[in-house]
Amino acid sequence: MTRILVTGANGFIGRHVLPLLCAAGFDVHAVCTRESTFPPEVSPHVADLLSCEQQRAVLREVRPSHLLHLAWHVPPGEFWTAMENVAWLRASLRLLENFGAAGGKRWVAAGTCAEYDWSTQGYWKETDPLGPSTLYGACKSSTQLTAIQMGRALHVDVAWGRIFSPYGPGEPEGRLIPSVICALMGERLARCTEGLQVRDFMFVEDVARAFELLVSGTFTGLVNIASGMTASVREVVTEIGRQMGRPELIAFGAIPTRTFEPPRLTANVERLRSLGFQPKYTIEQGLARTIEWWASNRRLEARSTPSDERI
Amino acid sequence: MTRILVTGANGFIGRHVLPLLCAAGFDVHAVCTRESTFPPEVSPHVADLLSCEQQRAVLREVRPSHLLHLAWHVPPGEFWTAMENVAWLRASLRLLENFGAAGGKRWVAAGTCAEYDWSTQGYWKETDPLGPSTLYGACKSSTQLTAIQMGRALHVDVAWGRIFSPYGPGEPEGRLIPSVICALMGERLARCTEGLQVRDFMFVEDVARAFELLVSGTFTGLVNIASGMTASVREVVTEIGRQMGRPELIAFGAIPTRTFEPPRLTANVERLRSLGFQPKYTIEQGLARTIEWWASNRRLEARSTPSDERI
Repeated sequence: MTRILVTGANGFIGRHVLPLLCAAGFDVHAVCTRESTFPPEVSPHVADLLSCEQQRAVLREVRPSHLLHLAWHVPPGEFWTAMENVAWLRASLRLLENFGAAGGKRWVAAGTCAEYDWSTQGYWKETDPLGPSTLYGACKSSTQLTAIQMGRALHVDVAWGRIFSPYGPGEPEGRLIPSVICALMGERLARCTEGLQVRDFMFVEDVARAFELLVSGTFTGLVNIASGMTASVREVVTEIGRQMGRPELIAFGAIPTRTFEPPRLTANVERLRSLGFQPKYTIEQGLARTIEWWASNRRLEARSTPSDERI
Repeated sequence: MTRILVTGANGFIGRHVLPLLCAAGFDVHAVCTRESTFPPEVSPHVADLLSCEQQRAVLREVRPSHLLHLAWHVPPGEFWTAMENVAWLRASLRLLENFGAAGGKRWVAAGTCAEYDWSTQGYWKETDPLGPSTLYGACKSSTQLTAIQMGRALHVDVAWGRIFSPYGPGEPEGRLIPSVICALMGERLARCTEGLQVRDFMFVEDVARAFELLVSGTFTGLVNIASGMTASVREVVTEIGRQMGRPELIAFGAIPTRTFEPPRLTANVERLRSLGFQPKYTIEQGLARTIEWWASNRRLEARSTPSDERI
């Protein structure tokens, strides 16, 4: 049984990838900075990965041959400029070094479309030049550039999946799709930009499937993790309004577009397809699952909150 | 008086830049991992820059507004793949962070032509894509990518000088030009490759002058540190043989060309020229100064070595 250690296991992508790794027959170990609930077949570990000593301790304990590194500092909005990501760049390279020293063989990590030069064409393949315009993108690019060369020196296979625009159950509430769904569920106005930005939206279970594929395979190097299905923010938000039956609550143009966000952020997905990947969800299907999740989540919250007001 | 801290101050470039900074009116502080001899107007400090605590201590003590970061792991030959450079990448970003936190304003650091994609044209300008093919080049590229974005977050001006092929007094003996000079001085055969590689050779005092210019100015971003004067290794080695009067000791083709070294490594120098820089030395003049230095160095060594054999 192949043993894998997953970092960021309680994060947005991590939560979806764990069951897939279990189903694929991995002996799955999850590491987080605090105690978290995982599926019963996952072995949980608590460690602060920003500490080299704690990295070494968890690697000594688990001795994984595979590592899926998803942990990073990504609070909605602030992560673009957060200095914490410089610490994560340092910690990620340390982790690879410690993993290699502990006998690790295959290291797969999450990159981002923010590694590309957003002032260019808006549609990127993996061989296009790096040109991050944010600290977040620079930290991810730097981790990747160095990790790929380190892999050669350490005899560790390194694969790097560049995530574009994931969405789905568990996405942090401050981000676009959850904020629109929650507004409409609460019968509040969903204040949006004009929504002309075009993105490659990928349902999080498809993102997780792509990472499971990367971990299980032998591919090394860079690959875009994207669906190949593009839509404008306006189209996606309109579809949410339609599915939730509250189109009148959507206010396009109510907030300005963030200046550093490019009009198009789309991916050439040939490389991912060549690895045998096909997305399972259309945008409509993914949104339906996401709305359903928020609705049941909200019902759970309502049940668990004592409502003294009505007494 | 502007206070500057110079790292790698006892290195090949560092030794040449210190007197220029003093002459330009800086209050010069030099930091090294061991006690070193410096010009009397330089304030020496000993610290291990791979330690965050020691970085902070020296920054607290010096409180520099300017920092020239030249320290790195560069033993001839082995530096291309040395894992120590991953530690220097981490330490360099820490240094910038600590420098910003200590009130620093301007950070200038040494990059390398190995940041460019050597599989391409052989002549690079600063806007060309990154494409390091070595761990050394990846670590330098990563430091640069992240440092430039960190500079914005920390309100520190960051300038990055990409060094091409420096040579001159103090160059480590294992490298091309010193090894040929030393062989000829010792009346031994200088075993060379075919020498068809073309490089932008720059005399180290000119390299130092370019860094003094960068430190003193307000330019931020990337700039090639190169002379604009190119020659093949064969031309340079032939000139050494001519100047030393021992052309017959040079054996071209005696050793194979290192496979990862590209045939051309030359620089567009428009950006450096636009900052007001002109090299002072032709290749012939630079080689003459270098041969002279090795000769006097060798005489000093001979004088300080007791020669019992002749008694």
